[in-house]
Amino acid sequence: MREVYVAGIGITSFSRLEYPLAEIAAYPAMLALRDAGLKAVDQVYVANMGSARINNQTALGSAVVDTLGLTPTGAERIENGPASGASAVKQGFLGVAAGMYEAVLVTGCERMREVNNLEATDFVATMTHPLAEYIYGVTLPAHAAMFTRLYMERYGVTARHLAMVAVKNHANAMLNPFAHLHQPITVEGILDSPEAFTNNPYVAEPLRFFDCCPVSDGGAAVILASREKMAELGKPLIRLAGIGQATDTLAVFERPDPTDLLAVRRSAASAFAMAGLTPGDVHVAELHDAFTILEIVESEEAGFFPKGEGHLALEKGATALGGPLPINPSGGLKGKGHPVGATGVGQVHEIVTQLRGDAGERQVAGAKVGFTCNFGGFGNNVISMVFVREE
Amino acid sequence: MREVYVAGIGITSFSRLEYPLAEIAAYPAMLALRDAGLKAVDQVYVANMGSARINNQTALGSAVVDTLGLTPTGAERIENGPASGASAVKQGFLGVAAGMYEAVLVTGCERMREVNNLEATDFVATMTHPLAEYIYGVTLPAHAAMFTRLYMERYGVTARHLAMVAVKNHANAMLNPFAHLHQPITVEGILDSPEAFTNNPYVAEPLRFFDCCPVSDGGAAVILASREKMAELGKPLIRLAGIGQATDTLAVFERPDPTDLLAVRRSAASAFAMAGLTPGDVHVAELHDAFTILEIVESEEAGFFPKGEGHLALEKGATALGGPLPINPSGGLKGKGHPVGATGVGQVHEIVTQLRGDAGERQVAGAKVGFTCNFGGFGNNVISMVFVREE
Repeated sequence: MREVYVAGIGITSFSRLEYPLAEIAAYPAMLALRDAGLKAVDQVYVANMGSARINNQTALGSAVVDTLGLTPTGAERIENGPASGASAVKQGFLGVAAGMYEAVLVTGCERMREVNNLEATDFVATMTHPLAEYIYGVTLPAHAAMFTRLYMERYGVTARHLAMVAVKNHANAMLNPFAHLHQPITVEGILDSPEAFTNNPYVAEPLRFFDCCPVSDGGAAVILASREKMAELGKPLIRLAGIGQATDTLAVFERPDPTDLLAVRRSAASAFAMAGLTPGDVHVAELHDAFTILEIVESEEAGFFPKGEGHLALEKGATALGGPLPINPSGGLKGKGHPVGATGVGQVHEIVTQLRGDAGERQVAGAKVGFTCNFGGFGNNVISMVFVREE
Repeated sequence: MREVYVAGIGITSFSRLEYPLAEIAAYPAMLALRDAGLKAVDQVYVANMGSARINNQTALGSAVVDTLGLTPTGAERIENGPASGASAVKQGFLGVAAGMYEAVLVTGCERMREVNNLEATDFVATMTHPLAEYIYGVTLPAHAAMFTRLYMERYGVTARHLAMVAVKNHANAMLNPFAHLHQPITVEGILDSPEAFTNNPYVAEPLRFFDCCPVSDGGAAVILASREKMAELGKPLIRLAGIGQATDTLAVFERPDPTDLLAVRRSAASAFAMAGLTPGDVHVAELHDAFTILEIVESEEAGFFPKGEGHLALEKGATALGGPLPINPSGGLKGKGHPVGATGVGQVHEIVTQLRGDAGERQVAGAKVGFTCNFGGFGNNVISMVFVREE
């Protein structure tokens, strides 16, 4: 296999965007092309979860190459629920690794705020088991709530730990101009103040409003290129050194222990093995904190902390900016936002920004190795990636 | 790049299927695994266009690996409108060619008859330009009708030629136990008889009922494998020797000459170049006859006949079983059916069946080189493939 590098990146603000879906994919793609110094690529992958349902549009790959004026370049849409972004990056990786393409554009997008929050929640729930979960009305917040309760009972995680994730990621998002939420919060404010019950109501007990990521529109793009192509472009050599993917049972109740996120564990282990690195080598990570509990548990399953001790590391500030392993310096899904098809590409955008040393006030000093975890379904299809800055 | 082979195939009948969508993908996948003699693969790709909208289900990749009991194997859904099937085969090719996977399962599925024909037509129309076409009410039959009218005026194609395509493909479908339509028809019956206007009404003039493919449920699967893996399996060596893809403007009216299907021309030329073969080397082809006109025009753009002369070749029987280049021995989309996400994989299923010499009464004698053309949008995203039987 050939080695694969990130040659260019681009992103929209994650927020409410009023322009058409194909343009939400095309705008960051243009930025990524400009960043790479390219006017053309050999292939386009578009990551998106809901266009057919939310936006009444299919064949989005064709729409995006057309919008970009890149025809007759080939294009596909890749869908893997909220892990669509990382799945699309994976396809781009394979095309360059195979030697079929020299440069591939991967752009992720979602325009979710076209529908109201209730419809968005129902739409997201379509990724659950259709006959064993969805028809009984389970939603992702409900799944996450049940999971959180089990985790609290088993490992001593408290509502305060969950709030710490939100506070950290909102603080990080303040340093990210592209983040959806620019709203500093405190544990006191969202848990202890007299207004907390009103400002931070329960969504699905024990999860409260500030434990859940926002519903966002947004797009993010990366250009993947071969070593030969990189030599022409003169960009920093950020190598996609490892990719791991694992699925798990679609229905959560079928798992031997539902507090184990085996797909995270397996995908991370595969990614580290492929990269020839270990969790201890990582300087910065973007994890999929659609719910606050997930950042804690993924930080364990990825191998950064022992099982059941992620909340203790969080408590000590280990995952804050300035700590030994900053997690979600971008603000994460919680603070930066979660336009589902864009999220996995946005994670790569952040890690590349960090490894290039371009992250400004949220820069993790000396970051040379980065990690991403994009979590599909309720942990039924997870992709982990390891990025390495070469000199 | 490593060479890639088809190790196994499976298909459902294309018709109305009453079982869940993930099982429509899983059933032919089981057949393909059994055909290949495999119990596991390294990756699964699911081709599907409409699950989020028609079937209220996303993240179908996860659902299919779960249904098959193949977790923790990675899986994605690939969507490229009606060319989703070939796009998924392309991803599988890249994974094996790169050396990342030894064996990949590609399964395509669609469960379209869950909605009525009007809704199915509207759903399919979501692949058109959202702002320049779809909102004005254009449908795929309407696009095809306008295209047919231009082609008739320019090249002398008549309603009789269109009917000949339908008659030929219905006749071929009679020999295919998996075909949706087992209904022999004659040109006289559908054009000249007193009942023709009733039995074969206009859908979008000049296209009549029998010029349009049916709305089908169905699934089709293939296993792609490396040369090394093939050596273990002992199956006939059918190599995926060439893949070409091309996009065109999303809005049909933006094309300099709308009677040119440039994406077909370019994708076929790329596929032949990659395979080191020419159209004259092909023994059997599966073309994307969603409307009868498309078989005629694709047979020209793929390079089998000069531009504007496809209908003359058809008239002479050149494309019938027993002719020099049988086209759509399976019955094509017209006779076999068109479950959109499965169609491109179904085309590969037929070509592999033919190159293995397993096609029974519809066998093209001595077929060693086969061609497929899977047509996305109204010609805005097309994938052509060349398959070669090695001895």
